[in-house]
Amino acid sequence: MPVIDLNADLGESFGRWTLGDDAALIQVISSANIACGFHAGDPSTLRRSCELAAGSGVAIGAQVAYRDLAGFGRRFIDAAPDELRDDVLYQIGALDGFARAAGSRVTYLKPHGALYHAVVRNEGQAKAVVDAVRSYDPTLAVLGQPGSLLLKHAAAVGLRSVPEAFADRQYTADGGLLSRSEPGAVLTDPARIAEQVRRLMVEQTVIADDGTEVPVVAESICVHGDTPGAVAIARTVREAITGSGGGVQAFTNPPA
Amino acid sequence: MPVIDLNADLGESFGRWTLGDDAALIQVISSANIACGFHAGDPSTLRRSCELAAGSGVAIGAQVAYRDLAGFGRRFIDAAPDELRDDVLYQIGALDGFARAAGSRVTYLKPHGALYHAVVRNEGQAKAVVDAVRSYDPTLAVLGQPGSLLLKHAAAVGLRSVPEAFADRQYTADGGLLSRSEPGAVLTDPARIAEQVRRLMVEQTVIADDGTEVPVVAESICVHGDTPGAVAIARTVREAITGSGGGVQAFTNPPA
Amino acid sequence: MPVIDLNADLGESFGRWTLGDDAALIQVISSANIACGFHAGDPSTLRRSCELAAGSGVAIGAQVAYRDLAGFGRRFIDAAPDELRDDVLYQIGALDGFARAAGSRVTYLKPHGALYHAVVRNEGQAKAVVDAVRSYDPTLAVLGQPGSLLLKHAAAVGLRSVPEAFADRQYTADGGLLSRSEPGAVLTDPARIAEQVRRLMVEQTVIADDGTEVPVVAESICVHGDTPGAVAIARTVREAITGSGGGVQAFTNPPA
Amino acid sequence: MPVIDLNADLGESFGRWTLGDDAALIQVISSANIACGFHAGDPSTLRRSCELAAGSGVAIGAQVAYRDLAGFGRRFIDAAPDELRDDVLYQIGALDGFARAAGSRVTYLKPHGALYHAVVRNEGQAKAVVDAVRSYDPTLAVLGQPGSLLLKHAAAVGLRSVPEAFADRQYTADGGLLSRSEPGAVLTDPARIAEQVRRLMVEQTVIADDGTEVPVVAESICVHGDTPGAVAIARTVREAITGSGGGVQAFTNPPA
Repeated sequence: MPVIDLNADLGESFGRWTLGDDAALIQVISSANIACGFHAGDPSTLRRSCELAAGSGVAIGAQVAYRDLAGFGRRFIDAAPDELRDDVLYQIGALDGFARAAGSRVTYLKPHGALYHAVVRNEGQAKAVVDAVRSYDPTLAVLGQPGSLLLKHAAAVGLRSVPEAFADRQYTADGGLLSRSEPGAVLTDPARIAEQVRRLMVEQTVIADDGTEVPVVAESICVHGDTPGAVAIARTVREAITGSGGGVQAFTNPPA
Repeated sequence: MPVIDLNADLGESFGRWTLGDDAALIQVISSANIACGFHAGDPSTLRRSCELAAGSGVAIGAQVAYRDLAGFGRRFIDAAPDELRDDVLYQIGALDGFARAAGSRVTYLKPHGALYHAVVRNEGQAKAVVDAVRSYDPTLAVLGQPGSLLLKHAAAVGLRSVPEAFADRQYTADGGLLSRSEPGAVLTDPARIAEQVRRLMVEQTVIADDGTEVPVVAESICVHGDTPGAVAIARTVREAITGSGGGVQAFTNPPA
Repeated sequence: MPVIDLNADLGESFGRWTLGDDAALIQVISSANIACGFHAGDPSTLRRSCELAAGSGVAIGAQVAYRDLAGFGRRFIDAAPDELRDDVLYQIGALDGFARAAGSRVTYLKPHGALYHAVVRNEGQAKAVVDAVRSYDPTLAVLGQPGSLLLKHAAAVGLRSVPEAFADRQYTADGGLLSRSEPGAVLTDPARIAEQVRRLMVEQTVIADDGTEVPVVAESICVHGDTPGAVAIARTVREAITGSGGGVQAFTNPPA
Repeated sequence: MPVIDLNADLGESFGRWTLGDDAALIQVISSANIACGFHAGDPSTLRRSCELAAGSGVAIGAQVAYRDLAGFGRRFIDAAPDELRDDVLYQIGALDGFARAAGSRVTYLKPHGALYHAVVRNEGQAKAVVDAVRSYDPTLAVLGQPGSLLLKHAAAVGLRSVPEAFADRQYTADGGLLSRSEPGAVLTDPARIAEQVRRLMVEQTVIADDGTEVPVVAESICVHGDTPGAVAIARTVREAITGSGGGVQAFTNPPA
C-alpha cells in the first residue's frame, strides 16, 4: 500500500486571538507543523498543540519563523546567518519542551512564511536553518520545498530531507507552482484536487498547466486549516488517498 | 573540605545592549543562572552564555522570568498559574537547546526578579513554577530563597530544593534580609563579607543586625556581576571560601 | 430629549489576527475606545479604526493598557507610577497621530482590562494615568468606573470625569456589579436590558439584585462587539435609547 | 557667519539597558534624533530624551525604524509600504506626545539603521516614510542621505528635505562614502576631521580618497555618541565649526 504524509500548520493562535480549526485539522493530518512563538503561538498554545498532536498520534514539527509577531512571519528579514541559526535553535528547543512534556517529541522542522521562501535560494539563511537543526538533534528531518537550498544543504550534512507537494495548487511545466496572481493557480474542484493527490502518491507526477505530465517527488502533502473551506479540502485530500487504496502516514516516527 | 556553590546571573544582554561582565564572572562562579529571553537574553546571547558556562565547567541554570523585556522582569505580573507554568516551561526548553548544543544541559532553575520574590509567598505561582520543572525534567533542581513556598513545593513533589544565601547582605534576627532601604543593608567591607561567607559555609550561621547568631542553611551563595564593583566582591567571596580551606563546587553535576 | 453616550472597544485586532466586528459596532456607538498597541492594535489597525470612527462621526478615545500583548492587558502589572504614566502617554500620542491623520483627534481616554480595574483603587496607578492625560492635553476627558480613584483624581486636577454604566450587568444594592461568578450576573433578556438602559438614561437608577432601586449616575453606557451576540445586544441598547425618545450622543465633541 | 546643524542619535536605551552618553552629547548637537520605541527607546527614555533636548534648546527629530528591538533596527525588513507608513506614523505620534509634554515638538524625521539605507533606493519604502510624515504634519522636515529617494520624494511632495554629511567618514570621488570594510574609511585624526568639517561648511566640498575635491551639499553633520571616543570626536567637530568662525544651529526651529 502506498503511503504519504499530510502536513499542516497548527497552533497559530496567540493569547486572546485564535486562528485555525486545530481540532478538526488534527483528525486529517499525520504531521503537525506547530508554531513556536516567533510568528505565532504563545506558550500555552504550544502546550495545547503538542498535547493535541501527541494525543492523536500525529508527528510534531517545529514551524520556525523570523521573529515577527506583527507581520506573522510573512516579511523577509535580512537576518545574519548566526542570528537566524540561534533564533531557529531557540524555537526548536522551546517547542520540544512541550512536545516532551506531552509524551512526544519534535521530529522535524519546517520553515514558515517568508523564511520558507527565503531558504529556497538564500544560501546563508538556508545553511543557518540546517546548522540549527544539526546542532540541536541530527536525527530531526527537514521538510520544505523540493529543489530548495534548504533541502540540499540538509541532505549534504546528513539530515533527512523531505520534499512536500501541494494538493490544491496548479503546477507549471518546470515543476514549480503557478503564481497565485494567475487565474487557476489555486485548485478548488474536489475532483481535480483528488486526482492531483492520487497522481502525486501513486505516480509521483502532476499535470502541469500546459497539459504535460511532470515528475514531482514528494513524501508529504501540505494542507491548510485556517478557514472552514480549507479543512474541507484537507478532508478531500485525505479521502483521495485512502479511497485510492493508499495510507496517510507521518514521514517520521513520533513516540507511541 | 567543606564546599559550597557560587551562583550568579549570566547572559542578561539583549541584542545591541550589553550588561554584566560575564567573562570575568564565569571565572568566579560554579553555577550560572542564564537568562532565557523573557526578561533578557536574545537567542545568540543564550548560545554564547551556554558555551561560556560549558567551556568553564560551570553548571547551567534556567533563570526564568515573567514575560517583561521592558521591565527586565522586575515587575510583578498577576499571571494565571497555567499561563505562568507554560511561560516557564517554554524558557527552560529554549535554554536547554543551547545548553545541549554546547555539550552541557540545564541542571536547575532559579526564578528572576519579581518572580523570585513572588514565589516566596504566592502559592499559585510557586506551584506553577514547580509544575513546569517537573513536567520538563524531574531531575532538575530548584534554587531559591530559604523558606519560600517555591522550595517547599519543589521538595514536596520530589524535586531537589536548594536554598541560597547572600554574601553581601545584612541579615536580621529572624533569618531574613535587612531591607535595602535601611542603612547597612548592603555590605561593602571585604573583610566583613569574607567573614559572613566563612561563617555561612563552615558554621551555617550569620551574625544578624542585632548581633545575634542566626542559623542560615544554604547550599549556594548568590553573587553579582553587573558592575565592576560587583565582580570584585564576587572574587572576594570566592577567595574567602578557598582561603578558609573550603571549595567552590556546583550543587548539580553538569556534563563533563 | 435625554441623551447618553454609547462606548465600545474597537481596533483590538493585531497583525494576522482579527477580533470583533468593528464595522457593525461603529453603526451603534458614539464613542470608540481604540486599542493603542500595548494590549492589541498594530499601527495599521489603529489607522483603520481611526478612519472608521472619523468617517462615522464617532468620538475617538485612547483605550490604554499595560504593555502585555500576550496577556491582552488582562493581567495586573505592578508598574511603577512613572513608568505607567509614560506608557500611557506613549499610547495616547501614537493613537492621536492616526486620529489626526484621519481628520479627527483623541478626545478622551479609557483604561483597558486589568488597568481599568487597578485604577479603581490603586492610587499610584490612578494618578499616573491622570498625569499622562494632563501632560498630553488637559482638555481630554477620562472615562471609567463610577467612584473609581481614576475619576476622582481626574476631577481633582480639573479633567472632565465621565462615569459609565453597563446595560447587561446586574447591579447590587451598593451600586456595584454582581460578580460574574454569580448566576444572573450578565443579563441576556433583551427586554430586561432595554428596561435597564431606559432607567439609566431617564431616571439615573437601576434595580439591584435585591429589588431595591439604586442611583447610578452615568454619562455613557458600555457595550461590546467581540461576539455576534454582543453586537445584537449593543443594537438592543441603542434601540432602547432611541425607542424611549432619547438620543445617542458622544460625551465629547469630535471634529466634524 | 556660516551655520550648520549637528545631529546625533539620542535615547537609544531600553528598560534596564543603557546606551550612549546622552548628557554629554546634548551639549554638542543642535538636533537630536530620538529613538521612538521600535528599535530602541522605552516610553520613559522617550520622556527623558525629550526633556533633555527641550531643556537644551535642541531640536527633536523622530528617529524611526523597523519594528525590530532584537535587531536594533539594523536588519532590512521587507515590510509592505502601507504597513511601514503606519509603523512610521505610530512612532512619530508617540514621540511627539513626549516632545509636547516637554514643551517642544517633533520638527523632523530621520530614518534609523536598515531603514535609513533602504530608503536610499527602495521606492516603495521611501514613499511610505514620506507619506507618514505628510499625513502627520507636512511642516516636518526629512533628514537623510544626499541623493536618496527619501529626500527626492519628500521634496517632490513639498516636504523640506535636509541632506546630511559625515565628519569622520572618507568620501569617494562620486560623493559616496568609502565602504567601512576599506582601510581609512573612518577618520580618526582630529585635525583631519576638523578640516573636513570646515570644508563641508565653508566650501560645501570634501577631499575624496583619490585626492579630488568633490561637492557635498549638506545642511547637517551627523555625529555619534555611543562610545566615549565618539563624544570626543563630536566635540572636535563642534570646535572645528565654531573655531573657524561658524555656528552650530538646528535646521528647524524648535519651540523656545
